[in-house]
Amino acid sequence: MNDVGVVETQYLLLSDMGVHEITLESGAKIGPITVAYETYGTLNETRSNAILICHALSGDAHAAGYHKEIGHKPGWWNDAIGPGKAFDTDRYFVVCSNVLGGCQGTTGPSSINPRTGKPYALSFPVITIGDMVQVQWYLMKHLGIEKWLSVAGGSMGGMQALEWALRYPENVYSAMVIASTGRLSPQSIAFNAVGRNAIISDPNWQNGEYYGKAIPEKGLSIARMIGHITYLSEISMEKKFGRKLQNKKEFSFDFSTEFAVESYLHHQGQKFVERFDANTYLYVTKAMDYFDVAAKYGQGSLKKAMQKISSRMFLLSFSSDWLFPPSQTQELVDALIANHKDVTFYNIDSSYGHDAFLLEVEKETSLIQRFLQSSSKLWQEDRYEAA
Amino acid sequence: MNDVGVVETQYLLLSDMGVHEITLESGAKIGPITVAYETYGTLNETRSNAILICHALSGDAHAAGYHKEIGHKPGWWNDAIGPGKAFDTDRYFVVCSNVLGGCQGTTGPSSINPRTGKPYALSFPVITIGDMVQVQWYLMKHLGIEKWLSVAGGSMGGMQALEWALRYPENVYSAMVIASTGRLSPQSIAFNAVGRNAIISDPNWQNGEYYGKAIPEKGLSIARMIGHITYLSEISMEKKFGRKLQNKKEFSFDFSTEFAVESYLHHQGQKFVERFDANTYLYVTKAMDYFDVAAKYGQGSLKKAMQKISSRMFLLSFSSDWLFPPSQTQELVDALIANHKDVTFYNIDSSYGHDAFLLEVEKETSLIQRFLQSSSKLWQEDRYEAA
Repeated sequence: MNDVGVVETQYLLLSDMGVHEITLESGAKIGPITVAYETYGTLNETRSNAILICHALSGDAHAAGYHKEIGHKPGWWNDAIGPGKAFDTDRYFVVCSNVLGGCQGTTGPSSINPRTGKPYALSFPVITIGDMVQVQWYLMKHLGIEKWLSVAGGSMGGMQALEWALRYPENVYSAMVIASTGRLSPQSIAFNAVGRNAIISDPNWQNGEYYGKAIPEKGLSIARMIGHITYLSEISMEKKFGRKLQNKKEFSFDFSTEFAVESYLHHQGQKFVERFDANTYLYVTKAMDYFDVAAKYGQGSLKKAMQKISSRMFLLSFSSDWLFPPSQTQELVDALIANHKDVTFYNIDSSYGHDAFLLEVEKETSLIQRFLQSSSKLWQEDRYEAA
Repeated sequence: MNDVGVVETQYLLLSDMGVHEITLESGAKIGPITVAYETYGTLNETRSNAILICHALSGDAHAAGYHKEIGHKPGWWNDAIGPGKAFDTDRYFVVCSNVLGGCQGTTGPSSINPRTGKPYALSFPVITIGDMVQVQWYLMKHLGIEKWLSVAGGSMGGMQALEWALRYPENVYSAMVIASTGRLSPQSIAFNAVGRNAIISDPNWQNGEYYGKAIPEKGLSIARMIGHITYLSEISMEKKFGRKLQNKKEFSFDFSTEFAVESYLHHQGQKFVERFDANTYLYVTKAMDYFDVAAKYGQGSLKKAMQKISSRMFLLSFSSDWLFPPSQTQELVDALIANHKDVTFYNIDSSYGHDAFLLEVEKETSLIQRFLQSSSKLWQEDRYEAA
């Protein structure tokens, strides 16, 4: 299979569109805003083949292909985006942007506040999934798109896809909510809270004012390690590591990193601190904690919230995902069905846990392709009828 | 129901028995050793009514009744130990001791090393569940007991009960392995590893040399918070907290402790650092990581390991326990059955997660009582036949 080749991240300054600041769900205002994004494929004449890909907690705008300057590191969903792939760039114009509050080019707590000349740090306002989506809406306008063929994402990306369908129904023909949920459960809030606590407890954190100094890498690493436990399943951990020791056969009877699973987590923690901003971790996990579409759109009723949906909905869960378990997707599906919405739902049998949405590419590909093709056709028919 | 009333912790110095040091599984030697223990009820003339209760990670010797000096705080398993209770002190002589490596009276890393006059800290040797059990064996001898009617425990206490049955089959008439496992899974090792990492990353930890100074309370608190997430189930978190906010109705859009579940975890973390030693947390979790009866007693085969069992075995799991899930108890049961051992197994339907073993007292009581009564009778018959 081919891929999209060398790509470049582009930057949109909302102020170039005359948008100097935006109002957030909290009521706070923030601006100026820069949005880092990438595009793959070509927008067709009718502007009806555009797909927005939304990234998860630790993702960025670089979803597919390779960056020239840092060699051959592929985008985070390169397996799913490209010619002939699930999101087929021979057919579709695929867009991905870094979220508001992020640390990979879009304005976030590590960005310079032009009013002070210093990074925002904790003076950056607390944001929501809705705020992230609002910024993506401006990107859509900038690209000359009036309606996405689909907005798609896994995990926190799926929350954004769902939020798009609720917040901007007129701009979303279909939405794909993958390995995600309509609200963060107390267990997930708990894991996020402990991760944030680890960061905040790191003396290097310095109330968020660590830029240009030693970073709170120990705290961020612990947060990431906790995260990775929740991304795997018990079965996948058994298969991948079992009780294997790292590079030896006998117990060392000390506190060195000893089991293979410990070594994996330490490695993941270390890799993460080299590329991710600790304050962004705080902001983005908090946005997830706040996510609850029943509360926001249905006065507590998920069924009532789902009334607002007019997009075709595609939902995918994975059997061994215990972070956002199939039951949480099922709740969304039930509420959509109760409102007679156009719903497609698959629960893929997989041992990979939450990470499955990035790993079960083969199983996902035909499901996603078929849904996008039918959405494309149905939308075309709708337009003929309307014309 | 009554309880055992006011009790006092007693202290056994193994050197008073002529045991000046013991050899650990690592090959290291440690001594002198003090064992903190409590007893409830009366040892009968035939010394055939003694039950050893083994505590979990954060437990201690104070399993039942009240200490005079600190008011009315009941022992950690007061609901299950006392007159007419599961472990009926009108019938049985119940013993509980703090584990080796602990911090509640038994020798551990916070104890003074008589050779240096300073706390051991990390010069304390790394211990195993088997080492804990070896120390309990000396306590048994000191109490004039040759065979326990039963050795019982939940979680890490269940590991000790299983280890007793394998290490000292001649001293254990029956063993009760509750909410436990025959080996720590990679997922559990991962959670322990992250908890230890949080402690070690706390600058106050000072390579374990924090005694008499500021303690690594932030790291220990994070470790405890992680632990508590694994002790609850998703269902029990939903029931207990849901997405409720603590003391308010609107999001605060800041990083204060906001959700009820966060507040609960912070509270648990805070309470824990007031009573528990961070180094003991390292040692005891490491002992759990090493626990694998198939590797130790069966050259990797659980079935082979279970051949060595001669005690009556009672195993209890809880449906929503995802730390030591029912499937792990089932593996033990299957291996025992394959060896035609005397096995009693119940999987109790409960929403409380791992904590269920402390909370589902009503469901446990009759099961435990019945098993102890039948064990008592069967042992008596065995003795008549032998006489």
